[in-house]
Amino acid sequence: MAVVQVTVVPVGSSKASISEHVAHCLDVLEGTGLKYQLNPMSTVIEGDLREVMEAIAKMHESTFGEGIDRVITAVAIDDRRDKELTMDGKLAAVRERRGK
Amino acid sequence: MAVVQVTVVPVGSSKASISEHVAHCLDVLEGTGLKYQLNPMSTVIEGDLREVMEAIAKMHESTFGEGIDRVITAVAIDDRRDKELTMDGKLAAVRERRGK
Amino acid sequence: MAVVQVTVVPVGSSKASISEHVAHCLDVLEGTGLKYQLNPMSTVIEGDLREVMEAIAKMHESTFGEGIDRVITAVAIDDRRDKELTMDGKLAAVRERRGK
Amino acid sequence: MAVVQVTVVPVGSSKASISEHVAHCLDVLEGTGLKYQLNPMSTVIEGDLREVMEAIAKMHESTFGEGIDRVITAVAIDDRRDKELTMDGKLAAVRERRGK
Repeated sequence: MAVVQVTVVPVGSSKASISEHVAHCLDVLEGTGLKYQLNPMSTVIEGDLREVMEAIAKMHESTFGEGIDRVITAVAIDDRRDKELTMDGKLAAVRERRGK
Repeated sequence: MAVVQVTVVPVGSSKASISEHVAHCLDVLEGTGLKYQLNPMSTVIEGDLREVMEAIAKMHESTFGEGIDRVITAVAIDDRRDKELTMDGKLAAVRERRGK
Repeated sequence: MAVVQVTVVPVGSSKASISEHVAHCLDVLEGTGLKYQLNPMSTVIEGDLREVMEAIAKMHESTFGEGIDRVITAVAIDDRRDKELTMDGKLAAVRERRGK
Repeated sequence: MAVVQVTVVPVGSSKASISEHVAHCLDVLEGTGLKYQLNPMSTVIEGDLREVMEAIAKMHESTFGEGIDRVITAVAIDDRRDKELTMDGKLAAVRERRGK
């Protein structure tokens, strides 16, 4: 299991808003059944690394079209093998350290 | 106002866990009074861009010491001038598009 | 064709140097036959997006082992469909703009 | 001394090409006198971390205007304190490991 952060940015869209594209990417992601969390800068996905990367490829691909000819996608993969890595587990570890 | 995502990673720490360092960075960030949200891959901060970048410099700096001689910090700045950009506003725009 | 930037960072390696791991990743990448350029912060790879992502998965995977239980990999994909995107073409476009 | 990677992306530019903006950012960076290298995905800058971050703030700021109301800037800071970190030194360490 890996935890992966992704941000998909359409380039040359003629408007500063990209929420329409983010919403469309999330619809695509939801179709994969993978567990995810949206935050104000990215979407964090948890699961088998290969499945997560397939999902990200679909999100990236789905952003082309309707005037969008260029897409820049940033991905950060956090992959740990000595213990199971989950979104909830990562947050809990930090909260426990802070005594909260 | 900008919305900025930051991830601070200590290198050469001799253990796979980094939650102790993330917790320490959040203590430093909390001292600045800036609004922020922790997620499983990064911390998202909102505010005047210069103040946010000062806070990130402090978080980065505070990670050195106690055996840590190298720190890799990733930052993504989202800065919009035609309307006010906030963490809540960004999430609300996506949710509205998805009809949720 | 896409142009993709990748940085693979081992966590908990007990030493600040990671050049050994970068060198190993480049050996793995060279085995794929894809065109690439190393720079001081990342490796830039050019090619069919699916093939490039397969190569990055191999680079990431090859970093585990010999005491490394956690790997953080950052990827930035630049994918353009209205004209062919290449590493040389991108650099040439910027140089031409600067009159150099 | 730190080595820092930066990519500045204008959003809503109405055209897929961004080389004009990259060229302008490099002109701004050249004005700072800092040592840098352009690659197909980013610009890598070497120097005192505070000076480099000031330069990046200028590059980011200079991208607004002439129809650009939103700029997304990605930064990766590599900062090492047990030995001097330079762009050339990082590349040499990897090349030496690979026996080239």
